Formats: sequence, structure tokens, C-alpha cells
Amino acid sequence: MSEALVVGSVALDSVETPHGNVSEVLGGSASYGCVSASYFAPVKMVAVVGEDFPSEHVGAFEGRGIDTSGLKSESGQTFRWSGYYLREMGGAHTNTTALNVFENFRPTLDESQRNAPFVFLANIQPGLQLSVLDQLTAPKAVLLDTMNFWIEGSKKELTKVIERVNILLLNEEEARQYMETPNLIEAGLALQELGPQTVVIKKGEHGSLLFQRDRVMSVPAFPLRELKDPTGAGDTFAGGLVGYLARLNSFTDEDVRKAVVVGTAMASFVVEDFSLRRTLAIRPGEIHQRVDRVLEMMRAPVLDQETLAGRNLAATIS
Amino acid sequence: MSEALVVGSVALDSVETPHGNVSEVLGGSASYGCVSASYFAPVKMVAVVGEDFPSEHVGAFEGRGIDTSGLKSESGQTFRWSGYYLREMGGAHTNTTALNVFENFRPTLDESQRNAPFVFLANIQPGLQLSVLDQLTAPKAVLLDTMNFWIEGSKKELTKVIERVNILLLNEEEARQYMETPNLIEAGLALQELGPQTVVIKKGEHGSLLFQRDRVMSVPAFPLRELKDPTGAGDTFAGGLVGYLARLNSFTDEDVRKAVVVGTAMASFVVEDFSLRRTLAIRPGEIHQRVDRVLEMMRAPVLDQETLAGRNLAATIS
Repeated sequence: MSEALVVGSVALDSVETPHGNVSEVLGGSASYGCVSASYFAPVKMVAVVGEDFPSEHVGAFEGRGIDTSGLKSESGQTFRWSGYYLREMGGAHTNTTALNVFENFRPTLDESQRNAPFVFLANIQPGLQLSVLDQLTAPKAVLLDTMNFWIEGSKKELTKVIERVNILLLNEEEARQYMETPNLIEAGLALQELGPQTVVIKKGEHGSLLFQRDRVMSVPAFPLRELKDPTGAGDTFAGGLVGYLARLNSFTDEDVRKAVVVGTAMASFVVEDFSLRRTLAIRPGEIHQRVDRVLEMMRAPVLDQETLAGRNLAATIS
Repeated sequence: MSEALVVGSVALDSVETPHGNVSEVLGGSASYGCVSASYFAPVKMVAVVGEDFPSEHVGAFEGRGIDTSGLKSESGQTFRWSGYYLREMGGAHTNTTALNVFENFRPTLDESQRNAPFVFLANIQPGLQLSVLDQLTAPKAVLLDTMNFWIEGSKKELTKVIERVNILLLNEEEARQYMETPNLIEAGLALQELGPQTVVIKKGEHGSLLFQRDRVMSVPAFPLRELKDPTGAGDTFAGGLVGYLARLNSFTDEDVRKAVVVGTAMASFVVEDFSLRRTLAIRPGEIHQRVDRVLEMMRAPVLDQETLAGRNLAATIS
């Protein structure tokens, strides 16, 4: 077993969905990523909060064994996001974003953080992601997540980050937007050409597509009858990936495929309730159950080659 | 090997997509369904055309060995549809529909058609689909396709058809619309409760979901970098299903899963060009190749159970 480093945001979120609403609950990409990863390997968190950040949340992280020595507390308010989802549970709609202490966040890694072998650069400004990359001494695998905001406003800088990571994660709208094509296959292949060994396009209820060398793989979403709140699904997915790769201490193409199945299972928990409620309450055996269910959905039938020959009608007619 | 019966429309389509446009080309659900099915088993077509229907199209059907004795020619014009697709290649947008001879279409089966073991009821008015069902003497498996128009206008009658078929095919918007839920899993499970052994929800580039007993299965789409014209994809998919089931002369749950993979491969051909150009030109070995590619996309990794146990941190902390 190896260990994982997660650099991202810790936030207080206010969210409204068709299933209810919550105010100032624990959120942020690093929170979701770290808790998810913590089910598989030791995790170090690098993020910033304000003086108002409730200590019980730090307790929740530490209860999951997360090393919070990189969670800096600065004077000022914690990063806040407020948004809502419509009935279709597509993308989040933002009401307000208050960066607060996050505005001056400059992640500085200590020695043990710099030596981290498996790293998840969660969604923050690409310039900061670059500075983290520059500080890493010997990363085995770096995972990168981003968002439309940076594709629109900092594409050049973002491209520099993409060129240097092993695994790029983005959702389908972002992939289409980045490559300016409606075709996901074309987008995935083009993103792969920028450098990452694996590109993972996240498609929510439609699962994910993996682009690896000359291969495209598909992993379905866990079949949920109800989503309560999609917030954090992508970060929880990525956290599962980085945590599981750290657990395996390896990241062959096949390992990454395994990790995507694990990430898929992890993401299915987080959307069942608001904030990290469900993810913090995963019971022994539940991850294994959901992984098996996803694998079962993927189970390929075996077709007899002879049945696929195609009826050679021209021959019978001529 | 058994045989397949396809009842649906034969049309002259005018289509515009970002990749070009065509005028009065061969189209219609029965055309796409029959040609696709003909690669696997003998096929009988039941449909109607007008006096203006070009005889070369009948020749194309017969070149594929399709029994066109059920393709009636009536005085009047052939059914015409004209529509377009936007850059995203989502659903078709209709400019005009002229039912013409199709308006008075009342499918009457002769004895050999009534005895057909594998039947595809392609998209036509549910009342006509019911009348075909009433004429069948001993069907082994009936596949049903429909469209939003009938869900909106003839839901009661459509439900009666659904209750009597073995395999229901519909696209994701139709599934959500029929069951009045944004959640596809909920929609699929509820549709299954109406009676069909299998419900297949078609999701275009995202592949398809199969609902069978207590199982949900996922089959990805064939990875195409470019779609020229999505017209007929659903009918070609269904034609591949019914043809392949007839080829196997069996329709266990596993057989249906195989047939969905075959239908997926068949649909990938039709969208590569307008009308039936590409589907009529499939070369020996190509079907097999694409089936293998879809199966490869589905290949599930093998995860070591011990790695999924979840780190029991409470125990180490307490």
C-alpha cells in the first residue's frame, strides 16, 4: 500500500435540489476527494479554511484517518458556494461563490507531501495546480480534475497542466468544450494526444469512458433509483481512483480500469444524501457490493463467431 | 436458424445534417429493420408504398434476400418524411410528414407471416401494432419500438401493446416521458413491471441499458468519431436484435444480451452515411469486428476482494 495526496478546496456549501436543501454544510473538492480516498489508503489533505470552519468537520476528516496537517486555517472566512439542481439533476447552477480565504491560497507542500506518490489535483486554478506539480519530487501518478470555468478563462495554463499529468478527468460537457467538438470519442482521443496516459470522461448517469492508448473502455454508472444531491460526485469518483491506485501502489492501464470501477461505486454513495453524510457512513462490505454490481452490469456475453458471419446473399442470388 | 417478420413503414426521406443533405432517399422503420435483420436470418417485410416508389429500392431489399411479398403497393404517394439534425446530433427535428398511402395502412398478414416466430413491431400507430399481435399465431418473441408521438397521444393503447410484447425498445427521452420521471433506472424498472421480459433503453452515443428480471445491464455504443446521419439508428439496432434472435432461434436473457451487442454493432454502420448506403454495403467480417470492439469496451477488470474491504479506521482509532 502506498499513500495519496489531495490538493483542492474545502468549502461550506448551501445546496438546493428537488429532494431538499442544506445550508453551510461541508463541501469542496478536497473534502470529497480525501474522504473517498481514505477508504483505500492513507491520505494527506492540502487545502485552506477560515477561522469560522467548524472543528467538527476537521474531526470528521481525522476520524477517517486523513492527515490534516496540510489543512491551513487562515484569518477570514471559509470558501462558500451556494447553488441548486433542477429536476433532471444535470449540472449545478451557481447562486453565489465567495472565495474568501481561498482567494489567497498558495499551496506549499512540506517534505512528506512533496514525496507523495499518488496525487489528486482537484479542481482549483490551473496556475496553482502547476505550482503543486513543480513541488512534487517523485510522483508515480498524478490525477487532474478541472471545470468549465478554467477551460473558458485559462485554457493555455490548463493545457500545460494536462500535458504533465497521468490521468485527466473531466465531464462530457467539458470534454466537448475543450476540444470544440460535439463528438465525445473525438474529444477523448484528442485530449489523450495532449499527453495523459488515461483520459476519463465522466458522464453522470451514463457512466464513464476511458481512453487508454488505442483503447476506449466504458464503465456504467451504479444503477440508482434516486439521487438526492449530485454535489461532490466527480470529486468522490476521483478520490476513489487515487485512493485505490495508492492501495494497489501501481497504475497500469488495467489498474486504472479497476480504479474507475471503484470510483464509480464511491460516487454512487455520495449522491444518496447531501454533503458527505452518506460517504462518511459507508459500512463494511458496501463498497465491495457496489463494485460487484457495476462489474455485473458490464458482464459481456459470449457470441459464437459463426453466427456473426453475415449471410452471404450475393452468392446465393448470382 | 428461424426467421423474422418486420412490420413498419417504408418511406422516402429528405434529411439534412451538419455533414450534408439528401432528398427522397430510402427510409422508414421497416426498411432499416429488415435490411439489418437480413444479415442474420431470413426476413419478411410487411409495409406499404405508393405507385411512385422506385423499383430499385425493392431490388435492394430483394438483393438482401428479404421477402417483399408483404410490401403492398397502393395507388397514391409513398410516405414522406423530411427533417434535420443539429450539430449535437441529438433527436431529429421534423420539417414535414406526409403519411400518404401510409394513412390507410392496415397490415393484414398471410399465413406464413402469421406464423412468424420472431417479430419486430417497428414504430407505427399502436392500434395497428395491436392488430398485428392479434394476427400472430405462435410468436416466440415480439420486439416493440415506439416514439414520443404515441406516448403523448395514444398512451393507453400503447400500454396494451407493451403488456403483450417480450422486448420493449425505447429511447431515453421516451422512457422518462412514459414513466414521468427524470431517473432512467426508475423508468426502466417501472416499464419492466408492465410485462416485457426485457426493456432496452437506447441512449445513442451512451449505448443502452437492459432491464431483465432483477438485473440492469449496460452496453456501450460503438466508438465512432463521426456520425453523418442518425436516421434509422434505432430501427437498425432493433433489426439486428430480431435478426440475431431469429438466427439463434432462442431468446433467453443471455441471448437478448448477445443480440443487443449485435444491434449496437449494426447501428454503428447506418449512422456512417445517409439512408441505407452503409448498411447495404457491409463487408464480410465487418460485423464480427465491430461486435468484438464493443465486447472489448465492456471487458470488466478483475478486482481483488481484499482491496475493497474498506479501511476500518474506527477500530484503529478507538
